[in-house]
Amino acid sequence: LESNRVIAIDAMGGDHAPDAVLRGANLARKRYPNTHFLLFGDEGTIEKGLSRIGMRGLRQVSTVRHAPEVVANEDPPVVALRQRRNSSMRLAINAVAEGEAECVVSAGNTGALMAMAKFVLHTLPLIDRPAIASFMPTARGESVMLDLGANIECDSDNLVQFAVLGEVFAATLLGIETPSVGLLNVGAEDLKGNTTLKDAAARLRDTELPIVFHGFVEGDDITAGTVDVIVTDGFTGNVALKTAEGTAKLLRSFFRDAFMSSFLARIGYLFAAGSFRKLSQRMDPRRYNGGVFLGLNGICVKSHGGTDAIGFANAVGLAIDMLKQDFNSKVSDHLTRLSSAGPRSGHEAAAG
Amino acid sequence: LESNRVIAIDAMGGDHAPDAVLRGANLARKRYPNTHFLLFGDEGTIEKGLSRIGMRGLRQVSTVRHAPEVVANEDPPVVALRQRRNSSMRLAINAVAEGEAECVVSAGNTGALMAMAKFVLHTLPLIDRPAIASFMPTARGESVMLDLGANIECDSDNLVQFAVLGEVFAATLLGIETPSVGLLNVGAEDLKGNTTLKDAAARLRDTELPIVFHGFVEGDDITAGTVDVIVTDGFTGNVALKTAEGTAKLLRSFFRDAFMSSFLARIGYLFAAGSFRKLSQRMDPRRYNGGVFLGLNGICVKSHGGTDAIGFANAVGLAIDMLKQDFNSKVSDHLTRLSSAGPRSGHEAAAG
Repeated sequence: LESNRVIAIDAMGGDHAPDAVLRGANLARKRYPNTHFLLFGDEGTIEKGLSRIGMRGLRQVSTVRHAPEVVANEDPPVVALRQRRNSSMRLAINAVAEGEAECVVSAGNTGALMAMAKFVLHTLPLIDRPAIASFMPTARGESVMLDLGANIECDSDNLVQFAVLGEVFAATLLGIETPSVGLLNVGAEDLKGNTTLKDAAARLRDTELPIVFHGFVEGDDITAGTVDVIVTDGFTGNVALKTAEGTAKLLRSFFRDAFMSSFLARIGYLFAAGSFRKLSQRMDPRRYNGGVFLGLNGICVKSHGGTDAIGFANAVGLAIDMLKQDFNSKVSDHLTRLSSAGPRSGHEAAAG
Repeated sequence: LESNRVIAIDAMGGDHAPDAVLRGANLARKRYPNTHFLLFGDEGTIEKGLSRIGMRGLRQVSTVRHAPEVVANEDPPVVALRQRRNSSMRLAINAVAEGEAECVVSAGNTGALMAMAKFVLHTLPLIDRPAIASFMPTARGESVMLDLGANIECDSDNLVQFAVLGEVFAATLLGIETPSVGLLNVGAEDLKGNTTLKDAAARLRDTELPIVFHGFVEGDDITAGTVDVIVTDGFTGNVALKTAEGTAKLLRSFFRDAFMSSFLARIGYLFAAGSFRKLSQRMDPRRYNGGVFLGLNGICVKSHGGTDAIGFANAVGLAIDMLKQDFNSKVSDHLTRLSSAGPRSGHEAAAG
């Protein structure tokens, strides 16, 4: 059972579990040879899945851990936290807390996963709340956006901490030396009253972190790639992410309609099909799979619930890359620099 | 000078003023024959514009009103309000307040226009704050979204009032008998703490308005067309609108790249070009031009600053349609129904 890296997998999480999860782990196993998989879930079901053709390789580098319960998609976080203590999700997270595994990947219920991960793993020192981050495709390549829904309301300390999490993520995962960071806002002329954003901006402007603080950005700056890291509260980030996904879906359907709308256009499609297949790959949502939970005392990656084996393998890959790059110690290092540079906001210092 | 309808135009507002404005008014004049235009701005410049070939028709149904000042795009709302009292924008709004004109259209600075319109026209009875609304293209046709940026922070009374403004707008402008209304939110599982949205939802659920209250919707429901009216605060609405615009722009550039990426794809484009021209028309931002200021004691339409004559003419058309349909009295009627159905939220009743 000895190997370089141990990863805990919630084998029962997601719409196509355990099939997509196991096939995804099997793909990841080929890409990352020195990895051992702890597979949490119903033992019989997982063993059956592993006994299929092509799964022998995964079987050899895996340990199956029986979990009698499953977190349902409908379970509210509080219910999952209190009543699903023997679920595949919870036991997989426990494995990280107990030092058995170095990271956990699940395609299950996001709210439950966040609640459990927060409760079991706790946040890193100097981080008040974890955030959900993801890559966004842009005109210039890829950016990082956070928070995508973990925290509905945020104060300026949260936003500053998210900025640190985001810049370290962009630096380590996208290889950008001094990432540019922007705070998501509306047109500057309407800024009255939003002191949270102004406070956060003032503190990021003065920071000694290795970042370029760009200031405020607007919704259209996300896909323009104006900055490498977009920082926002979880309400706005979640709406922006889903609005972008919905708009992309609408435009793809408009384009499909245009190609199907006439005989000539269909012929045109035959000629252009190769180029559009490449475009599909470029926009493949599986490339952007995985909402990473940043700020926890342990690596936790959430795969899209509806993803297939390729998407799940990408989520596993992301977790392993974060381990390799020693993500959390870099975050702690930057947080220390931030706190030594000056006190936190007066409001928070008094409150907390 | 007698005609059925008098419309005040800020001839100096927008990136291509007064040229695009005058040409737009001229187009609108042809579509709406019984309209008289009050053109506010520098008299010499406007007269020069009107003296050109093809403008004689507009000249005959217009009165030029000299305004010595112009609101700049960079003017903060407070500055515009206090120091631009003789601007084309302000004098055009004044004309509505003084009963000289029935509506005002401007392509100028949005924040300044809103501040001035609120100050000069006041809100309708039972409306605490006006909102900016616009049409959004969806998979099912068009929806209405508001607020798009007038109010960065909103309480539940504001949201309920926006719902009324939005449903009357959808009913009168899109011809939907009982519009469906949704409140923009994140996944229900993370709702903790956001009492504003819960309060507004509870009140809309009980309402006797002629609407179908759908409950909460998410970012991807905007373009899916899940509801006819999407209600949200001005911060979230502004970010969502600009994120959608940015995503659409990114995808159009991806598609353009795909068509240009190979010789075969270019040939394909030749065949498909006709269909894609139709698609371009369908997605033409000029069709969705005009952020309408709803809830004011007067009709005020904001055209995009960068729009051309066609876009400006559409904004004028929208204002005239609202007049024809007697938009504001329908709003007042629905607001009365709402207030007679029950008290406002305790919080607000105490505060206001």
